[in-house]
Amino acid sequence: MPKTTLKHLAKILGLSPATVSKALKNYPDINENTKKRVIELAESLNYQPNSLAQGLRNKESKIIGLVIPEIVHHFFSNIISGVIKAAEKRDYLVIILQTNESFEQEKLHLKRLMDKNVDGILLSLSDNTTQYKHIKQVIDRGIPVVMYDKISKLVHASKVIIDDQKAAFNATQYLIETGCKKIAHIRGDLKPQTTIDRFIGYKKALAKNNIPFDPTLIYKCKSLTFSEGFKIAKKIINDHPDVDGVFAFTDLVAIGVLKRLSELNISVPNQVSVMGFSDWFLTKITTPTLSTVHQPGFEMGQKAFEVLYKDICTLKKGQKIIPEIIEIPTYIVPRNSTLKLLDKPR
Amino acid sequence: MPKTTLKHLAKILGLSPATVSKALKNYPDINENTKKRVIELAESLNYQPNSLAQGLRNKESKIIGLVIPEIVHHFFSNIISGVIKAAEKRDYLVIILQTNESFEQEKLHLKRLMDKNVDGILLSLSDNTTQYKHIKQVIDRGIPVVMYDKISKLVHASKVIIDDQKAAFNATQYLIETGCKKIAHIRGDLKPQTTIDRFIGYKKALAKNNIPFDPTLIYKCKSLTFSEGFKIAKKIINDHPDVDGVFAFTDLVAIGVLKRLSELNISVPNQVSVMGFSDWFLTKITTPTLSTVHQPGFEMGQKAFEVLYKDICTLKKGQKIIPEIIEIPTYIVPRNSTLKLLDKPR
Repeated sequence: MPKTTLKHLAKILGLSPATVSKALKNYPDINENTKKRVIELAESLNYQPNSLAQGLRNKESKIIGLVIPEIVHHFFSNIISGVIKAAEKRDYLVIILQTNESFEQEKLHLKRLMDKNVDGILLSLSDNTTQYKHIKQVIDRGIPVVMYDKISKLVHASKVIIDDQKAAFNATQYLIETGCKKIAHIRGDLKPQTTIDRFIGYKKALAKNNIPFDPTLIYKCKSLTFSEGFKIAKKIINDHPDVDGVFAFTDLVAIGVLKRLSELNISVPNQVSVMGFSDWFLTKITTPTLSTVHQPGFEMGQKAFEVLYKDICTLKKGQKIIPEIIEIPTYIVPRNSTLKLLDKPR
Repeated sequence: MPKTTLKHLAKILGLSPATVSKALKNYPDINENTKKRVIELAESLNYQPNSLAQGLRNKESKIIGLVIPEIVHHFFSNIISGVIKAAEKRDYLVIILQTNESFEQEKLHLKRLMDKNVDGILLSLSDNTTQYKHIKQVIDRGIPVVMYDKISKLVHASKVIIDDQKAAFNATQYLIETGCKKIAHIRGDLKPQTTIDRFIGYKKALAKNNIPFDPTLIYKCKSLTFSEGFKIAKKIINDHPDVDGVFAFTDLVAIGVLKRLSELNISVPNQVSVMGFSDWFLTKITTPTLSTVHQPGFEMGQKAFEVLYKDICTLKKGQKIIPEIIEIPTYIVPRNSTLKLLDKPR
């Protein structure tokens, strides 16, 4: 059955489309009997006003875009979930686009969202993004952008982040306080900023505890996967048989380390403590369970939408957006891959 | 900076908006010099045509809706990823909505998507949906719906599914062929159909191998979580100390079983084989790794979009949609929680 239009209703009732439209909107200059006839027919034919046309009139689409590096990823799934939850409360719908860490995709997606006249965009940078002109173009067109998780200081927009440096400092400090003296760090590539910040946090914790920084304890991995962690664990043990702690950039890598240490008959946490980052669901089910830093994806998603909504409203009032930076707190989740704080130091 | 409109351009150039519009569309009745002036100014001001207005003219939004029960879920994340990938190829954008298995949410979401005039909807039923009037309403309005994964035979629409019965039959058959004689089955609640079908598949495999069906070997769990599996494993062992196989409705439950059996010092797979369902990423990293049925989420998502696109095109041509049912093949992934096919039977 084709969609019922205003014209159909008008034709059936022998009225003008303008009269039908006014009747549906309860205009006072239409008599009550006509209104009744129009509404009854509209309901029986399941008539719904054309929302594209409505959007045009209100100059808002009530749709936002969410650009995400990777959909099949526990942390980003949580972000999506948080954004959608917060958007629903404000009757906004969310278009989701994935960059797969590609700068070209990111540019293309922003253009597609602009073409659809979304009311705002939430963006986490792809690892390969080093220019920001495409983002400035969106902002210049009057579409607010809020960056989350992977951001750039060079873009003048609101941002929702965690303090990676502080979180990594706390993670390393926790390893030290539970007795670790020789801690290896598995980090990501030179980009993005998160990798650099977690590395700095690690170094700062060593410095604070007068542990000299040893560059041979730093292991770089590109893909940040389970199998990379699995591979690197062997290398760490070969290079440093007396290592007593490993702090990995992300849980998946840490779980690879756990698995390899278990195969090498190295007891975790008694010989080597392992600390992850992110608090993926699977950290609760590994053997032993993984101590990690909780990175609150759901909360970050919710907050990112709320800030975007605020910016959209500011712009609608004809006011200027004053970008703000919101930090979502992280915390350590102690599980069984580290010693207890009360345990005697080694 | 506010968005540049056609009116702005016209005012700056001293032309009528109609002339500017025609110039941008390269109409032959506008002289070349005027076209050049208009295009240069439009480019320098980063002018982009209003896509809502365009959508109105074309009577299509190039947006589809994807209604999903749960976003933070490996299988559904893969579905989202597949849908978005396929949609991008056709220049469609995807609005994602989550039902959290609530019928009320499902109804509301379909209404919201209708109000936005999406071109089509992909829908996996919430577990609590037992009426389908809300779906028929969407279809009656001329918006094609394609159901995926959790479907109803009572809705006249295209569907993309796996054969749960066959997949569960194969999983049970595999356990039997690797030597299991007494296999417990952990199933979900009475709804949805997937639970019933996997249970039937299990029973059929027993029957085929002349193993009598023992209802005390069936364990029902509502929430299908790790902790439910963990709890039920103990019960299974208490009730049936001689059980030698467990086939769980989903990986998460199976992984809970693995964990508990390990704590009970029951060797997997030598004493008890464990088989999951879905092939979540984490099945590769448990100890032992989990044998399971691969449920191809990404492919299902891609296919679901393609079928929807075909249905949208059919409708656009003024033809009637002839619903089709597409089955995506599944297969067993043997890992270390089951014995090898070549191993001697117990």
